[in-house]
Amino acid sequence: MALVVQKYGGSSVANVKRIKNVARRIVKTRRKGHHMVVVVSALGDTTDDLLKIAKAVTDKPSEREMDMLLATGEQVSVALLAMAIQKLGEKAISFTGPQVGIITDRSHTKARILNINAERIRAALREGNIVIVAGFQGKTVGEEITTLGRGGSDLTAVALAKAVSADRCEIYTDVDGIYTADPRIVPDAQKLDRISYDEILELASLGAQVMQPRSIEVGKKFNIPIHVCSSLREVSGTLIAKESQKMEDVLVSGVALNENEAKITIFKVPDRPGTAAKIFKELADSNINVDMIIQNKTETNSTDISFTVFKNELTRAMESVKQVAEKVGAKKVLCDEHIAKVSVVGIGMRSHSGVASKMFDVLAKNKVNIEMISTSEIKISCIVHSNKGKIAARAIHKAFGLGRK
Amino acid sequence: MALVVQKYGGSSVANVKRIKNVARRIVKTRRKGHHMVVVVSALGDTTDDLLKIAKAVTDKPSEREMDMLLATGEQVSVALLAMAIQKLGEKAISFTGPQVGIITDRSHTKARILNINAERIRAALREGNIVIVAGFQGKTVGEEITTLGRGGSDLTAVALAKAVSADRCEIYTDVDGIYTADPRIVPDAQKLDRISYDEILELASLGAQVMQPRSIEVGKKFNIPIHVCSSLREVSGTLIAKESQKMEDVLVSGVALNENEAKITIFKVPDRPGTAAKIFKELADSNINVDMIIQNKTETNSTDISFTVFKNELTRAMESVKQVAEKVGAKKVLCDEHIAKVSVVGIGMRSHSGVASKMFDVLAKNKVNIEMISTSEIKISCIVHSNKGKIAARAIHKAFGLGRK
Repeated sequence: MALVVQKYGGSSVANVKRIKNVARRIVKTRRKGHHMVVVVSALGDTTDDLLKIAKAVTDKPSEREMDMLLATGEQVSVALLAMAIQKLGEKAISFTGPQVGIITDRSHTKARILNINAERIRAALREGNIVIVAGFQGKTVGEEITTLGRGGSDLTAVALAKAVSADRCEIYTDVDGIYTADPRIVPDAQKLDRISYDEILELASLGAQVMQPRSIEVGKKFNIPIHVCSSLREVSGTLIAKESQKMEDVLVSGVALNENEAKITIFKVPDRPGTAAKIFKELADSNINVDMIIQNKTETNSTDISFTVFKNELTRAMESVKQVAEKVGAKKVLCDEHIAKVSVVGIGMRSHSGVASKMFDVLAKNKVNIEMISTSEIKISCIVHSNKGKIAARAIHKAFGLGRK
Repeated sequence: MALVVQKYGGSSVANVKRIKNVARRIVKTRRKGHHMVVVVSALGDTTDDLLKIAKAVTDKPSEREMDMLLATGEQVSVALLAMAIQKLGEKAISFTGPQVGIITDRSHTKARILNINAERIRAALREGNIVIVAGFQGKTVGEEITTLGRGGSDLTAVALAKAVSADRCEIYTDVDGIYTADPRIVPDAQKLDRISYDEILELASLGAQVMQPRSIEVGKKFNIPIHVCSSLREVSGTLIAKESQKMEDVLVSGVALNENEAKITIFKVPDRPGTAAKIFKELADSNINVDMIIQNKTETNSTDISFTVFKNELTRAMESVKQVAEKVGAKKVLCDEHIAKVSVVGIGMRSHSGVASKMFDVLAKNKVNIEMISTSEIKISCIVHSNKGKIAARAIHKAFGLGRK
């Protein structure tokens, strides 16, 4: 008899039929004798619909009021799911995030969880209930309703798993698990049975968006094993857990392709301390996310700085960069939208040399020119021309033996 | 500079355009220098839509979960209205019922307000905010979300007016105010400038459903003047207040017609103590609302009992009544759907005799046969044949001089 936390995303509860399906799955687990806490997202496109109506009311909705508005989506889900479970003859009770004491900071629309007082959940479990909790939301100590940002229900699930000392945390999605690459791009990509927190973190921020990165950070911090499974099919998914000896034997776990970035290069930036800081502070102040940053000093008094940003923020980024480039006395600013980022991730590469050289070799053999390189302990990323991205991903996937045998 | 509580119903905020309209009205009052607390219902048909989806999930939704579900409707409204007001340049802040300390008992879906701790509203007003509060909802001391039943937003408004010691409580609806009769039936019905709590209570339960009866009871208890006004047009509405000397000079304030009831008669009920109690306990246990009850003992050992129920509950009512009639040894049960109830209401009739005889005389002159009569201190109701209801209402309205001159 275990204590299981399950999380179901919006597409799993998009309509009445799916809500009933999810209820049946939950009841099945319950009848195996397990205690259950279930976290649910808003029904289907509810959140987007609410965003749309807010936009129709005002172009700049206050973040506090957005949280009041958006938090209703999950509250609808939990009530309906509790009803569906009761209909199947099991005891169930729904709660909002505030009701179960999910206390956050005051950063509306992207609040961070500070603390969870799980006493109310424990009491409801003791009474024999399946406890249904609204994902994505919490409250401040001042009783203000907050939301945790996109994908926040994952965070709710992992944080609750910690708070109630769950034996298992299961994240149900519309994919079967985590793959060695995106199967739409690399057809023989394989499902991974197990992956480490660090690897999935690198994969998530690289664009293989299966789970919200912050929820994995919490899982890693408290060592909570997270199972990613399909809510549609009964297949074993992928276990996200701390690395094992066996895992380190695998050189590379996955290949990621990100085609949503653009490159900006600032030429001949005067080589003075604090110049780079000025540039990236300007971008941070404009709320622009910067991914790869490369600086390579080749001349005596100046340097070129390149970095990548999201394509949909490129126009705003260029405005900011041009201003600051003039201020610091740089020569010119150019951008390139025709790029793709190919990355390999694997904790095995920490202790094995040769991953980088093998990757570069594969790219060369496939006539893919490398524009930028960036590495971390468990990741190597290369920027290539956008029309070579898919070729590069497939070739690397094959070269590291990740495909089906 | 006054403190004004305003309440807007669901049809006043049914879409983005109407939300913006309401925001403009509120800002206009605010700019006259008044402090404002605004209570809002759920957008348009939201509540009915939520009820429908719950019904699709289960035939018997738990009342606790219904409250979780339904409370979201008003939360959406308050967030959007606050945004719309902010867009017009005024400070506004939205709250759920639980957030502003509306404490209720634990009767889910029809909770009663026990207490309101208005400190949070007062603080928000001091900071210069227009305070927007979700109607229809509250919480128990155990932090369970509750709703106040149909029309509960009226109750929220009146109770908040009391809690913050408001100078005025304004209920905005899609009618101009309260009329001497339903203008669709009696074309020359007039809008009343003023009506007493007792009269509107009789009118409300008689079918002229402008405001929820419980909210008027609270208004009466704490002597809070309630203005019923149109949210669509800028006309003076009707003031519901305690009776004045001037009001007592008016014999009859209004005429009501109710065509939604049916009559049930149980014949030859043995005349033993407790028999009537048995019959009506059975109906109460089956959750059937009974309106007029008439018993007139004419024979020695038995009596006939007649009463009215809502037409849509007639089938269920007949089932219960037949069972209990057999148990108590009554002779037979008959029902009649072809009835209408015509009532006159007026606090003036308390101190003036002759209202009843005038009413019966008018009906006789118009060849309307009276099937049942029931009276209270300020009301006389007659059951007539359904095809005579409208004729009777018009004739009585005219006879008491209520029409436009």
